[in-house]
Amino acid sequence: METDPVALTADLVRCPSVTPEEGGALVLLENLLSGAGFDCTRVDRNGTSNLFARWGRRGANRSFGFNGHTDVVPVGDESAWTVPPFGAVEKDGYLWGRGSTDMKSGVAAFAAAAIDFVRDTPPDGAIILTITGDEEGPAKDGTVALLDWMAENGEAMTDCLVGEPTSPNHMGEMMKIGRRGSMNATFEVTGIQGHSAYPHRARNPLPAMARLMDRLASHELDTGTEHFDASTLAIVTIDTGNPATNVIPAACRAGVNIRFSDAHTGDSLSDWLREEAEIVAKLFNVDIAVKVSISGESFLTPPGPLSDLVAKSVQAETGVAPELSTSGGTSDARFVKDHCPVVEFGLVGKTMHAVDERVEIDQIRQLKAIYGRILRDYFA
Amino acid sequence: METDPVALTADLVRCPSVTPEEGGALVLLENLLSGAGFDCTRVDRNGTSNLFARWGRRGANRSFGFNGHTDVVPVGDESAWTVPPFGAVEKDGYLWGRGSTDMKSGVAAFAAAAIDFVRDTPPDGAIILTITGDEEGPAKDGTVALLDWMAENGEAMTDCLVGEPTSPNHMGEMMKIGRRGSMNATFEVTGIQGHSAYPHRARNPLPAMARLMDRLASHELDTGTEHFDASTLAIVTIDTGNPATNVIPAACRAGVNIRFSDAHTGDSLSDWLREEAEIVAKLFNVDIAVKVSISGESFLTPPGPLSDLVAKSVQAETGVAPELSTSGGTSDARFVKDHCPVVEFGLVGKTMHAVDERVEIDQIRQLKAIYGRILRDYFA
Ligand SMILES: [Zn+2]
Ligand SMILES: [Zn+2]
Repeated sequence: METDPVALTADLVRCPSVTPEEGGALVLLENLLSGAGFDCTRVDRNGTSNLFARWGRRGANRSFGFNGHTDVVPVGDESAWTVPPFGAVEKDGYLWGRGSTDMKSGVAAFAAAAIDFVRDTPPDGAIILTITGDEEGPAKDGTVALLDWMAENGEAMTDCLVGEPTSPNHMGEMMKIGRRGSMNATFEVTGIQGHSAYPHRARNPLPAMARLMDRLASHELDTGTEHFDASTLAIVTIDTGNPATNVIPAACRAGVNIRFSDAHTGDSLSDWLREEAEIVAKLFNVDIAVKVSISGESFLTPPGPLSDLVAKSVQAETGVAPELSTSGGTSDARFVKDHCPVVEFGLVGKTMHAVDERVEIDQIRQLKAIYGRILRDYFA
Repeated sequence: METDPVALTADLVRCPSVTPEEGGALVLLENLLSGAGFDCTRVDRNGTSNLFARWGRRGANRSFGFNGHTDVVPVGDESAWTVPPFGAVEKDGYLWGRGSTDMKSGVAAFAAAAIDFVRDTPPDGAIILTITGDEEGPAKDGTVALLDWMAENGEAMTDCLVGEPTSPNHMGEMMKIGRRGSMNATFEVTGIQGHSAYPHRARNPLPAMARLMDRLASHELDTGTEHFDASTLAIVTIDTGNPATNVIPAACRAGVNIRFSDAHTGDSLSDWLREEAEIVAKLFNVDIAVKVSISGESFLTPPGPLSDLVAKSVQAETGVAPELSTSGGTSDARFVKDHCPVVEFGLVGKTMHAVDERVEIDQIRQLKAIYGRILRDYFA
């Protein structure tokens, strides 16, 4: 009997697994996968719950991996929802609920595809599912913990597909073969407080901040590279908190977020930010403290066998040739990429993280079919 | 018998006349001046207490005015004071207390000088004292109310001296013959909120704000005029309040304060600010709302008979030739200037508004002597 990915998605949506709560989702999957012949291990670390499941033998020549997460972002304003957020209501051709798109349907689709595949046509190789309960949170003890544990225990994937939603609007239109890097920087400009009527006795940090932010925002980092969109810098906040119009403040703070192509690294951009801060600090005779936090370097699995395999399966099931993109935010693929070639393909992400998150029921079945075809072709 | 300006200052300091409290200060002055032959009228308006006092007849050919205030700014952190703020303690050659410098000593000095002068050498003319209980507050019903009432009642001054502290460090070094204008403007830049990873789908208000503030702060308004220091623009705050590094905010706000010479008017500067905002709004495709509030236009009593008279008296009593300045913040002279020539001369302002505000006792006597000499020379 075919494993129903829609029923499985609904069962998972009913688990209130808001990060860092396991919510029953991983227990449910562990029971299901164990029953289907998978070796399951809970790889929990520092309060984060993770599940490792392998069908086939450890150290197989070929082992295809799926990665995903069962944790979900908070419900937000529950009164704004038209359905119970964890009710898994089916109506109008959609399955509604928090996590229905991001990404319990993706996990359900690859689990169902894998279960049916190993039962119907046991492959010469292994299938590895790594499912974390912390992708939406700090992600320090999620997929990273699974990969650490795998390395320590001689477990390895030859290739990996992350099942995150990847298409902006239409099923099949986009897959991801990498991601831009992401980093945050904060700037604290410190001058000398004073009276607005006597600016020469003070040292106003705000003109320096304005100049620095203008320089950063006006700078063209690059115009894109072969596989990457242009790098972008967004000033996300500038704050002073001075309520007095007759007082020049002593300090102000700003934050920027950079999404960068493979023309840069976190280090090269940190150097650039510090140089800019130094130039402006000298120009305005103020102090500028810079703090940089690199969320992830850019990475790329260059177009090749893995992306071809996925693209061919998508096209066969949907009639659409997916664009090979590196756009968007970060995903756990940034961790997997250090272990094996990784690409991402999943559903339409339009309602992810939003009120009334929902997924087209037919597309869950279609996604399972795509994942099943990928497995067949991979082990053919 | 000479009227003692030190004892009078001490009596006034003991009145806790924090704006808008009358605190007994105007009642005390009214009693004293009435007893010395002044016609006194309380010109209270909207809860603000003011005192008008005239010696001599209404509509005299020559009537010399003194203007001052008895209200004081709050004590602030009382535990930081080394004396009771309203105790009028005399020690180390100083009289200590809130308002001792700004400007109960000034009021005491001109009241004492006027009382002694009209008793000893009754002039052919009038002396008018306008004393308000709201200079440190909104100043809407203080000196303005007195001047309104005077106009309605046929009262007029030929010339006026405001007794505010005017010297930065040494007695006699500076008088004021005008003041720069002052205005505040706020800017609200509105774009479209979005995700930092997709800046092209958002419209970030912050680069526009940075450019606008850089343009405003970099612009040289003027390099000073004959009697005025260069105009200055101080950015006093830029605020966004966005805690999320992955969100581009929808809006941010900034405030600037401008102190301007007679090369500008509040209107000409408002036009300039709005033009700049419009240029930047177009450049960045955002909305920029500008709100302007003009605290006071610049004004000048050009060097002439009144400033000569005051300068000569200061030099005679202190040996110092006062600089004729237009520096500093605002004062009620900005209202008086519409009625008659006005200059400002008073004590050293170093401790005004500060903890442990205090005044050199000898300088109170010196100030009374200067004011007395001004009256003698004026009516000679
Ligand atoms: Zn996700
Ligand atoms: Zn004052």
